[in-house]
Amino acid sequence: MVVEIVCVGTEILMGNIVNTNAAYLAEKCAGLGLSCYYQSVVGDNHDRLCEIIKTAASRSDIVILSGGLGPTQDDLTKETAAEVFDKKLYMHEEAKEAICAYMTKRGLTITENNWKQAMVPEDCIVVMNANGTAPGIIMEKDGKHIILLPGPPGELIPMFENDILPYLKKMAPDVLHSVMVKICGVGESIVEDQIKDMIDAQTNPTIATYAKTGEVHLRVTAKAENEKEAEKLVKPVVKEIKKRFGDTVYTTDENTSLEAAIINMLSKHKLTVSAAESCTGGLLSARLINVPGASDVYQAGFVTYANKAKHKLIGVKKETLYKYGAVSKETAKEMVKGALKASGADIAVAVTGIAGPGGGTKEKPVGLVYIACGRKHKITVKKFQFSGNRAKIRESSVANALIMLREVIMQNRID
Amino acid sequence: MVVEIVCVGTEILMGNIVNTNAAYLAEKCAGLGLSCYYQSVVGDNHDRLCEIIKTAASRSDIVILSGGLGPTQDDLTKETAAEVFDKKLYMHEEAKEAICAYMTKRGLTITENNWKQAMVPEDCIVVMNANGTAPGIIMEKDGKHIILLPGPPGELIPMFENDILPYLKKMAPDVLHSVMVKICGVGESIVEDQIKDMIDAQTNPTIATYAKTGEVHLRVTAKAENEKEAEKLVKPVVKEIKKRFGDTVYTTDENTSLEAAIINMLSKHKLTVSAAESCTGGLLSARLINVPGASDVYQAGFVTYANKAKHKLIGVKKETLYKYGAVSKETAKEMVKGALKASGADIAVAVTGIAGPGGGTKEKPVGLVYIACGRKHKITVKKFQFSGNRAKIRESSVANALIMLREVIMQNRID
Repeated sequence: MVVEIVCVGTEILMGNIVNTNAAYLAEKCAGLGLSCYYQSVVGDNHDRLCEIIKTAASRSDIVILSGGLGPTQDDLTKETAAEVFDKKLYMHEEAKEAICAYMTKRGLTITENNWKQAMVPEDCIVVMNANGTAPGIIMEKDGKHIILLPGPPGELIPMFENDILPYLKKMAPDVLHSVMVKICGVGESIVEDQIKDMIDAQTNPTIATYAKTGEVHLRVTAKAENEKEAEKLVKPVVKEIKKRFGDTVYTTDENTSLEAAIINMLSKHKLTVSAAESCTGGLLSARLINVPGASDVYQAGFVTYANKAKHKLIGVKKETLYKYGAVSKETAKEMVKGALKASGADIAVAVTGIAGPGGGTKEKPVGLVYIACGRKHKITVKKFQFSGNRAKIRESSVANALIMLREVIMQNRID
Repeated sequence: MVVEIVCVGTEILMGNIVNTNAAYLAEKCAGLGLSCYYQSVVGDNHDRLCEIIKTAASRSDIVILSGGLGPTQDDLTKETAAEVFDKKLYMHEEAKEAICAYMTKRGLTITENNWKQAMVPEDCIVVMNANGTAPGIIMEKDGKHIILLPGPPGELIPMFENDILPYLKKMAPDVLHSVMVKICGVGESIVEDQIKDMIDAQTNPTIATYAKTGEVHLRVTAKAENEKEAEKLVKPVVKEIKKRFGDTVYTTDENTSLEAAIINMLSKHKLTVSAAESCTGGLLSARLINVPGASDVYQAGFVTYANKAKHKLIGVKKETLYKYGAVSKETAKEMVKGALKASGADIAVAVTGIAGPGGGTKEKPVGLVYIACGRKHKITVKKFQFSGNRAKIRESSVANALIMLREVIMQNRID
């Protein structure tokens, strides 16, 4: 089956927002085994919308449209799609009640405009919106499936997960089952090299590679008559990948991030962690604390950007800063020691480096970063030379700090 | 003139990457006054590429294609575009030398494949690539302009800025001049309300509104025969907007972020700042430190996620935590006091709240955030009730903490 994604909105055409809906929908559809050959963006314009819906429906089995379901006159997606498929609109009582309940609960005033959102095409499937007022719509005609979703990601994503995904799954003739093997601390080319034989030989399951900063994700997908058969096909491949990459595989759960895996490990082994950050300026702590429930294991962190702060907050010696500089393995090591002492945590991780664009020298160029991690009597320091702009260097630093932190936890697990 | 953006790449169609190139190109083209009615994404497939290039060229004056210029057989954009416009390819000596120099400098091995990238369509403009091996291409035929750019943003962006932007500007019959007025701490609907008369009356210049978290940006754009005339048209409108929004306008420079404006103010008034963060977990510090040169004014910060850390690192009283709770105006205030003392900074800002998804109660629901900011004897605390998921609540918290910090700096500027 072929799917096509059409995002509607002037704000995307003008470049005011990045089209994350398209990426989300595309990844989900790929996960279902649907082929996608085209994505388009079009504004809230009747004629152009008409044309693009007709074209999409002529060349694809499923057309997913997002955006343009709002209450104003500008919002035309539903009206235009209904027109193209020759369906009349009528007031959907349940949708009307849901809008009423949604607005009332939030103390918002209902205007005449709002009822426009309760109008739906005849013979369609109406999908209730738990996070907004625009219901989703599924129309079926002549073997084509037209799915209309609200534009805000906070409405689109839950609606897709809860209602559209099961709908699409039912249509797929075969069942697809996929497992995401997430590897950290191994470069993309090395990963590809180590499984070249498997990729060359792949038919069912297939293996797809996704490179992230500091990580490589491998999606193993099998197609079969039923879920159980598909699982059976995936299992030995995942097992083989895990065997080849050993401890660098941090999860096979699609929804677990590296930081979540780390928080889980800390929690399991009843270890606490602290971070001392210079060039990353809080980003490392922010990633760890982004995991719900991090409070059990992450208690305190230090943003020690200035030398004075490194000394005052976490007791890095003035001599060390003077003799070796703030960006040195000695300072990184003392930052860990100081963070351990000041926080009382079991493990600490420290980052100090030159994120640029200024501040680089011949001896210490932009991108030079030292990361230290460990416990009181065993601290490891690694030197990195990252490339890219300030944001990229900071991102790479955080990723590698997480990877080192994970290694230290694993060592302490065995000790 | 009408421009159309076509991004080529299976990785976008599969949702492996978000299409930031489209957003970048769309914003730049909008800034030039070019109208954009369509964006598309297509894979590295000859027939579909052919079809999409033909369609785009039939309905738009300028077609910008990005991606698919790599050295492998999969990369078809240049070959297909040349075919559509009936141009032969030939080896471009300068491009060949540039590829050779690029590869040699980096110690990379040149393979036969690489020379494919030096092949260009006849009569085209070849744009050298300072950051990669694929040159950019501009083809002109029958009044249409086809622009091919490499896919990696690190190559596309500098090439666009340096060569494509001047090329497009030359084509535009009129000169466009725009100024971005950035407002913080005022809601979008209030901003729109306060300039409704100006928006209703707009012809030249035009005013476009962009809502960001905690901020509203207004782009004032005028069209004229020359730069000077356009500037003259923009000036009084910007002046009027600044008059209406007063101190909430933090910059009229497109490239200055709120955090950069704050760092500049602190630097100018020789003030230093510290942050104590609970639910934002380092994000506030990270945003401030993302400004190059922040080290002069931001020296130390505290991530005090646990109660213990709030007490130990920045001396929040145990009684306060017990009596009022970690998420309270009393705790927020003491966090500021403690951060001032522990860091020695002139101003401190503190955030404590419930980012969810767990941890909410009826009295203190998810989204409740207290932000405090001030100097030793004058600390302001504000209570917020944010909505959205964990990431959104944290983002809103950071934005409002920055806004409060800016207000405090302004007060101290006058004192």
